[in-house]
Amino acid sequence: MVTRNSSSLDPFFAPRGVVVVGVSHDPTKLGYAMAQNMQRSGFPGAIHFVNPKGGALLGQPVYPDVTAVPDPVDLAMLLLPAAGVPGVLEQCGARGIRAAIIASGGFREAGPEGAALEAECLRIAGGYGMRLIGPNCIGLIDTHLPLNTTFLLPPGPLPGDIGLLSHSGAICAALIDWARAEGLGFSQLVSLGNQADVTEVDVLAPVAQNDYTKVVALYMEGVSNGRRFVQQAIAVARHKPIVALKVGRSAAGQRAAASHTGALAGQESAFDAAFRRAGVLRATTVEEMFNWARALAWCPLPAGAQVAVLTNAGGPGVMAADTLAARGIPLATLGAETTELLREILPAAASLANPVDLLATATPRQYADCLRLLLADAAVHAVLVIIPPPPMDTAAGVARALIPLIQVSDKPVVIALMGGALIQEAIAYFRAARVPVYRFPEDAAAALAVLAERAAFFKRPPESGLLRADVDKAQARALLAGQAPGFLPQEVVNGLLAAYGLRTPPVALAADADTAVAHAAEMGYPVALKIASPDLPHKSDVGGVLLNVADAEEVRAGFATLLARARAAAPQAQLLGAHVQPMIAPGQEVIVGVVQDAQFGPVVMFGAGGVEVEGLQDVAFALAPVTASDLKHLLGKTWAGKRLGGFRQMAAVDATAVREAIIRLGQLAVDFPELAEIEINPLRALPQGAYALDARARLCESGAV
Amino acid sequence: MVTRNSSSLDPFFAPRGVVVVGVSHDPTKLGYAMAQNMQRSGFPGAIHFVNPKGGALLGQPVYPDVTAVPDPVDLAMLLLPAAGVPGVLEQCGARGIRAAIIASGGFREAGPEGAALEAECLRIAGGYGMRLIGPNCIGLIDTHLPLNTTFLLPPGPLPGDIGLLSHSGAICAALIDWARAEGLGFSQLVSLGNQADVTEVDVLAPVAQNDYTKVVALYMEGVSNGRRFVQQAIAVARHKPIVALKVGRSAAGQRAAASHTGALAGQESAFDAAFRRAGVLRATTVEEMFNWARALAWCPLPAGAQVAVLTNAGGPGVMAADTLAARGIPLATLGAETTELLREILPAAASLANPVDLLATATPRQYADCLRLLLADAAVHAVLVIIPPPPMDTAAGVARALIPLIQVSDKPVVIALMGGALIQEAIAYFRAARVPVYRFPEDAAAALAVLAERAAFFKRPPESGLLRADVDKAQARALLAGQAPGFLPQEVVNGLLAAYGLRTPPVALAADADTAVAHAAEMGYPVALKIASPDLPHKSDVGGVLLNVADAEEVRAGFATLLARARAAAPQAQLLGAHVQPMIAPGQEVIVGVVQDAQFGPVVMFGAGGVEVEGLQDVAFALAPVTASDLKHLLGKTWAGKRLGGFRQMAAVDATAVREAIIRLGQLAVDFPELAEIEINPLRALPQGAYALDARARLCESGAV
Repeated sequence: MVTRNSSSLDPFFAPRGVVVVGVSHDPTKLGYAMAQNMQRSGFPGAIHFVNPKGGALLGQPVYPDVTAVPDPVDLAMLLLPAAGVPGVLEQCGARGIRAAIIASGGFREAGPEGAALEAECLRIAGGYGMRLIGPNCIGLIDTHLPLNTTFLLPPGPLPGDIGLLSHSGAICAALIDWARAEGLGFSQLVSLGNQADVTEVDVLAPVAQNDYTKVVALYMEGVSNGRRFVQQAIAVARHKPIVALKVGRSAAGQRAAASHTGALAGQESAFDAAFRRAGVLRATTVEEMFNWARALAWCPLPAGAQVAVLTNAGGPGVMAADTLAARGIPLATLGAETTELLREILPAAASLANPVDLLATATPRQYADCLRLLLADAAVHAVLVIIPPPPMDTAAGVARALIPLIQVSDKPVVIALMGGALIQEAIAYFRAARVPVYRFPEDAAAALAVLAERAAFFKRPPESGLLRADVDKAQARALLAGQAPGFLPQEVVNGLLAAYGLRTPPVALAADADTAVAHAAEMGYPVALKIASPDLPHKSDVGGVLLNVADAEEVRAGFATLLARARAAAPQAQLLGAHVQPMIAPGQEVIVGVVQDAQFGPVVMFGAGGVEVEGLQDVAFALAPVTASDLKHLLGKTWAGKRLGGFRQMAAVDATAVREAIIRLGQLAVDFPELAEIEINPLRALPQGAYALDARARLCESGAV
Repeated sequence: MVTRNSSSLDPFFAPRGVVVVGVSHDPTKLGYAMAQNMQRSGFPGAIHFVNPKGGALLGQPVYPDVTAVPDPVDLAMLLLPAAGVPGVLEQCGARGIRAAIIASGGFREAGPEGAALEAECLRIAGGYGMRLIGPNCIGLIDTHLPLNTTFLLPPGPLPGDIGLLSHSGAICAALIDWARAEGLGFSQLVSLGNQADVTEVDVLAPVAQNDYTKVVALYMEGVSNGRRFVQQAIAVARHKPIVALKVGRSAAGQRAAASHTGALAGQESAFDAAFRRAGVLRATTVEEMFNWARALAWCPLPAGAQVAVLTNAGGPGVMAADTLAARGIPLATLGAETTELLREILPAAASLANPVDLLATATPRQYADCLRLLLADAAVHAVLVIIPPPPMDTAAGVARALIPLIQVSDKPVVIALMGGALIQEAIAYFRAARVPVYRFPEDAAAALAVLAERAAFFKRPPESGLLRADVDKAQARALLAGQAPGFLPQEVVNGLLAAYGLRTPPVALAADADTAVAHAAEMGYPVALKIASPDLPHKSDVGGVLLNVADAEEVRAGFATLLARARAAAPQAQLLGAHVQPMIAPGQEVIVGVVQDAQFGPVVMFGAGGVEVEGLQDVAFALAPVTASDLKHLLGKTWAGKRLGGFRQMAAVDATAVREAIIRLGQLAVDFPELAEIEINPLRALPQGAYALDARARLCESGAV
């Protein structure tokens, strides 16, 4: 179970008394709605109202200010013009209140003046050790305590088991209304607004720790602190599933989000990597988030991924099979005994293979008998039952027949109940029994896939943790000392790689053609020649790389060619001469890179290397330092990774050396956050070992730290 | 407008009188439901009932058999045990009835005996020139005629403008119920069942020609005749949009569908190519199909793709932007004048960029004023309005304010109305005004994207038609004469390519090393050596290709190596020696292939070539012969195609030669359907021209035809 730690957020979630500052006598005002919601919420502690005008409201006295309110008061809700908020906060702090929800808008989201007001609020709260939710939010709802600090039109949410955290208040209003119609309830709901103080990271654990919360749903427009989010989410996801909808996936969406929140968004690939690391299930639409949440809250986890589909019509069974396949979920191969027993109870034309098709004549009894057989089959880990309105029986009859079986089974069963008016009664039965019902087979299949994913998360061998290698950090630090911002000189880059145990071909700088010939002779022909310039990080773009240079004559000619090309392409570039390297045996080429993400820190990229990396998009990402499952993901999700094991006449190469390179390069970026980006492209993997044939690294503008 | 052609299907869609054979007096039987639906449907012609027992039903006489029914009768509905159907059909035919719907099951879907009965029905119908829908179907509904031949529980569908064709009857029952709840109506609905006679291809045009039909929705589990489907769909889609949901996209789904229908399914890539050719919009879920159909039926088409988003909350605006971006739809850049006018009417904190965020305080008046401005902006081609329940106003108020503007605009406007109970009134207003409403921004955005796609379909330059090149068909025919099934000898393959104007490097067969040296000397070094064997189509898999062979000595050694490798890898293979070819200059390598699809005939594949084609999956497909827009698709959707124009230091190559190769190879497959597959891999594109460096072709088992 989740351990409940006392925290400075406790007054939000278990206040002994609350005060609503800014109540109104005018029923069309939000200050009236907030007072009324609070009073009707059923909150068991004391509820007090404050308005300078005093008087009485909803049968209660209205105090002129916070100081006049009797003890105990742990939580203040503020709904008054922004300019008045700091003064009231000051009073709250002096009064000993340690938690405040600022519902008012007019702060950071409204411009510089508002931002100054917000900073002032934060300063006052800090002085009193007071925590703030908001401003510009609708506050929180706890359906079990119960407590409702919002000004939303009733009815409020149904009591339930989904804990919802949201960066948007408007979404909460819409979701409460939608979820009620869908029969979905919430345990707690927190609208975070501008997050001047309390963020989604802070409330993740408290909401998950609530005994009624079975699953946490997270609507995010960004993240307040990427690395802290990952840490918290890892801890929470071990106990309760987290489903996240992070909007702003596209560049257009990110621009829209930025103009909205002004927050520094992490890159999409970093979010994906972070969610995977943390075991957070990433939904792409609101509907998906709640479709998944419902199954996670109500169903046992399956022991494996194999699904049986039970239907009375072929088409919907095919739809389910398509969705399961798209999500990598296999259809169970039914046991011979199951098939025999199905044959006994079904008409001759029925399909006994999985999907099991009962035909349109299916009775509630047949549905139930088949479900019992499928649940008893060891090859079946979960069942999807499809119920279009049966021509002769009612869907409700089928529901009544199935529910008792589903309730006693330790295997998850989800329902696709297709239709409108004819299925309302059946929907009500299933909801009351906490059996997840979806309107279409695709949604039901996707929910089962998520259950399988969650089950697999628990079955993974315990993460051996962040992988680290022996490196010479001091040597790297010495190399970076005094370097100017921008792309680092090639010898520094090679030195960094060497310090971190990454092999590069021997390299020697030649300032003139004679020196180049001497180096080449020492290394042995053929050699590679590469232009040496701090100003030309993309050497091949200017024709600055010559391969398979065969003899002294070719070296001389090549040296001249490189310098001429570089001068033509970039007349201002400082040219140091050429680097000479021996040619490395053929192998497979990949790219390994790391960038510092604004939110999540170093993110490793792995994929098909060479110049076509941008075109082919055969890349995957992971947070650095990487874990064993990250490595499995990076190599398993890319063609570049899969082919390392050999493909047709392409020989297998040293995948272990590639994994090592990923670990080590990630570690370099973790140890030196001032390295804005590092990229080995290509890393050539040989049957034994791997060489960084080319690499570049950029020191961020602030320089070495 | 669609021209209405009289056809043998007219009696189904405009019968003067109908007879229901197999009515029942028992209200729990389908035969009762069918009689009742027919009588209540409001059908204006004569309705007659038949049952051998006679008597009366629902206030009408029941005739003992079809011969006793008075004239005129154009359509018979049969719902009786399968064994009795042929006899009744015989009577119907003799009686002059030219259209019959066989609702009964127990035919092909039930096994060999049923299949024989079905063949018998078809034979009888053929003899009388009678057309059959079914068996094993629910028949047809016309909500405007009106007519309802089904046995489904009432209520039937709402009258509307979607024409639905379905391979599944069960889906129809579920969809009628679901669509009614969604406020969606149908013009006509045809359940096709086993398609013994009439198929989806046959009814496509008649249903589209119905004046009430604004869009055709097609639920498909396969296709009865791929090429005919494409022809019909092209003709229909010019006038009315077709949205198709074809299930069985995955291998698992195809197996499930096959066990269900027993039909020969085409490959998914062929379906995609066929739908694209025909201008059919392909949905992936039932919900998507109807979400799209609603917008297509109710909205004007946009003049361009640029969308404005109007919202009162940031988050849903971001969701919309994400979905639009994922579908390649740009957010409109608003005109300076629009922005200024928005500034005048909105609060300072509102976002004036697109998405336009009115803030939570938005009034119906503000919504309407902003929508008016957006619709007036020339840069805006369509508008998506997002309405979460506003905190202070009602969604219905917003709906009332917006509808008059939407109704007079020639630009499409779709609504995302988020919530449950609080938005029901607004939903009703929008539906009554035929404004498409969706529950989430993502669905609304996707609907707009489909409108843009439909508009783009009409804006494409008129298709120049199927592209053809000058070829020597007679020469190819001569080469194929007498060839055995299986992979063709290399010289035959090269001859076919040459006859179709595809360049291959000169090649000479050498049975021994001395001959190989002589050929090489004549061609000039370096050369390539390839094992020559009819039994080794994948030469590189057995190490059967040596490149850059530099001199006579290397040729001798290479010849021996190739033979040794081939013998080791395939001891039974017949070895003819080695082919000698000159080395071709470096360039870009692509794959061009054609396979004969069971349903759609020759399908061209284009993409990244070499051995990694399977791994990279950088391929696209089109029906052969290809059109100009197919070529644009093939080269535009693949990295292999995009890079032909050059990428970083990769030089541009002759894309025209690549297009030519695609046209010519496609034509070869069209001209010789006995070629089961032909593949050029790689086709090396040079700055001038392109060479087929390697190619193989397989003659199908039945051999040359």
